[in-house]
Amino acid sequence: MHQRDGFAHGFETVEFERRLARAQTIMRRHKFDALLCTTPANIRYFTGFDTMFWESPTRPWFVVVPAAGDPIAVIPEVGGPVMARTWVKDIRTWPAPRPEDDGTTLLAAALSGTPRRFGRIGAELGREMALRMPVAQFIELRSRVSPELADGAPCIWEIRMVKTEAEIDRIRRICGIAGQAYEALPAGVHIGDSERDACRRLRADLTERGADAIPYLAGASGPGGVPEIIGSPRDRRLEGGDLLFIDTGSTCDGYFCDFDRNYAVGAAPDAARRAHEIVWDATEAGIKAARPGATTEDVWRSMADVLSGGGTLENNVGRLGHGLGLQLTEPPSNMPGDRTILQAGMVLTIEPGMEYAPGKMIVHEEDVAITADGCELLTPRAPRELWSIR
Amino acid sequence: MHQRDGFAHGFETVEFERRLARAQTIMRRHKFDALLCTTPANIRYFTGFDTMFWESPTRPWFVVVPAAGDPIAVIPEVGGPVMARTWVKDIRTWPAPRPEDDGTTLLAAALSGTPRRFGRIGAELGREMALRMPVAQFIELRSRVSPELADGAPCIWEIRMVKTEAEIDRIRRICGIAGQAYEALPAGVHIGDSERDACRRLRADLTERGADAIPYLAGASGPGGVPEIIGSPRDRRLEGGDLLFIDTGSTCDGYFCDFDRNYAVGAAPDAARRAHEIVWDATEAGIKAARPGATTEDVWRSMADVLSGGGTLENNVGRLGHGLGLQLTEPPSNMPGDRTILQAGMVLTIEPGMEYAPGKMIVHEEDVAITADGCELLTPRAPRELWSIR
Repeated sequence: MHQRDGFAHGFETVEFERRLARAQTIMRRHKFDALLCTTPANIRYFTGFDTMFWESPTRPWFVVVPAAGDPIAVIPEVGGPVMARTWVKDIRTWPAPRPEDDGTTLLAAALSGTPRRFGRIGAELGREMALRMPVAQFIELRSRVSPELADGAPCIWEIRMVKTEAEIDRIRRICGIAGQAYEALPAGVHIGDSERDACRRLRADLTERGADAIPYLAGASGPGGVPEIIGSPRDRRLEGGDLLFIDTGSTCDGYFCDFDRNYAVGAAPDAARRAHEIVWDATEAGIKAARPGATTEDVWRSMADVLSGGGTLENNVGRLGHGLGLQLTEPPSNMPGDRTILQAGMVLTIEPGMEYAPGKMIVHEEDVAITADGCELLTPRAPRELWSIR
Repeated sequence: MHQRDGFAHGFETVEFERRLARAQTIMRRHKFDALLCTTPANIRYFTGFDTMFWESPTRPWFVVVPAAGDPIAVIPEVGGPVMARTWVKDIRTWPAPRPEDDGTTLLAAALSGTPRRFGRIGAELGREMALRMPVAQFIELRSRVSPELADGAPCIWEIRMVKTEAEIDRIRRICGIAGQAYEALPAGVHIGDSERDACRRLRADLTERGADAIPYLAGASGPGGVPEIIGSPRDRRLEGGDLLFIDTGSTCDGYFCDFDRNYAVGAAPDAARRAHEIVWDATEAGIKAARPGATTEDVWRSMADVLSGGGTLENNVGRLGHGLGLQLTEPPSNMPGDRTILQAGMVLTIEPGMEYAPGKMIVHEEDVAITADGCELLTPRAPRELWSIR
């Protein structure tokens, strides 16, 4: 059960200092005096605060990241000792829950006290973000502070989209753990087991191999392909001719992998094998296209071309991958219209899929980090031939 | 790996029909024409929709629950096939992500189409709730629909606070699984193992015993007590004289348990043993006080009296337990000022804790369901004497 290699959880203070310095440059460009963070990923990004207590919706938590100076944590008393272990020095607490004033006064003072230059504070109001506090409380807060609380999402995503080496290291690590667990799965799952059995086996193995948590796991099966790719596994039993699809977002030190694997149960029908090869080839094209200077639309097109040539049912091929990091999915999107220019340090899923017959989908996925001259494959590449469950 | 007993996941349609009928009565009392749900727990409560895809923040999901008639799901296309397995018939999808209109037009039409009586729709704006959609999108939505989008939190919590037999059955089941895993832990953990080792062992065992997911797990250790109770486990190694504290919110069919256990590592110091007994006695008092007609403040006082007599350092004993169900923590709170009258079907944690010396906390927790004439203990009661790790 001991750590098998030299990996140690947590980051050095200098990592957070560098994140902050870079973030502050970006914040000033977006004309923000501070960012107001309420969500697990943003709070962890700036502080390193490590808890699963977010599952409790009862209390709001706040971190104010000023454009000059150090972060301020305004948090429930119960979190004080854990925040005190991070590099954050300015920690202000209140005895939550306190329905009549759950941190609003304390937070308003912290926001009003940040040095004023632009008169604007960026909050998690926009794209791919949901504020983690009651909207009613946010509206009250807004009426009590003089800086404008504007949409900070474009600024925050610009900050988080390019990962540091230490962040990529965690993603690489969890990709390796999940890759091993996927490869080992056929040894422990057999025809007649249910989707739920297979996914439970994978969960236990991921845990034993060192995944810290398994916040995302989808599993599905069906004859020659799956009818959907996001549902929880069910009691359906695996039969010869099925494809079994499993997709996990497991974490290391807060960072996600996000990739799936497909298994042939017994012998796969020819059409399924052909479709799997086309999707595998599309993945290969996506990996080749993922390089600095290319756009996410370029990466999408490289895959879409292979899929269209291969006979996908859909005329409009949608999103084929996305960013990932402290969240399972993050901007940008590999899709038409998203013209994000790739830079070294971005981490993307390469995720082509097709419905080759009604109700028969095959989706493939690998994770890559953009490097100075191409990309590094973070996941152990799946073989072109389907793994087999017997 | 097969299901060891007759338990089957998922609920009959009649369960959702009954939930809806009761909810509609409560909605009309709160003068709502509909509820707008965006969060995993509320959507699952009304539909049974089972996915972990919520981990992806990219797309908003909506379910409209009218005060008369059946629910309407307005969801990303990727979720259509999974929603089609539920009892929901009216499913409207769009190809998300579509940044220029991520469901707003479709949702506005659904809201405008609900029968009008009060001109108000309840949204997740208030207590212990955070809207799962961008605030900017919510503000745009509000400007495009004529019914007022008001705070639906009091109505929604009134609906969810009283559980059905089928809901309590799931909580009982996961409480039993976690109770067995806690009891088995000392056989697999030893002095010199780290907090992380111990928690990983418990995770793997919870999974093997049938927990569907482990969204919450906190672990801490320290000489004679723990300095905090919400952080993730660390690499600190267990030494003789320590207390090890673990708290899990694991799930069955979406429903949480929430209770902790304390272990003496080697021989516990006398002061720690005494403090544990006081907290255990306080739990006993809380369980006795939890009965229909009593208030949450009564339950709190029964525990606070034992703790105060036992020499807690804190003059102000805070919240000592809370509701639970589809979320790890839900209203009501066992605390001063919360005078919720207990009714049969409510499920509560009984959670007294004390800091008996600086940095030495002991917290105990059990889960109960209020019955017609008292309460049912859902967790296997911890012994008054600490379990021991050697």
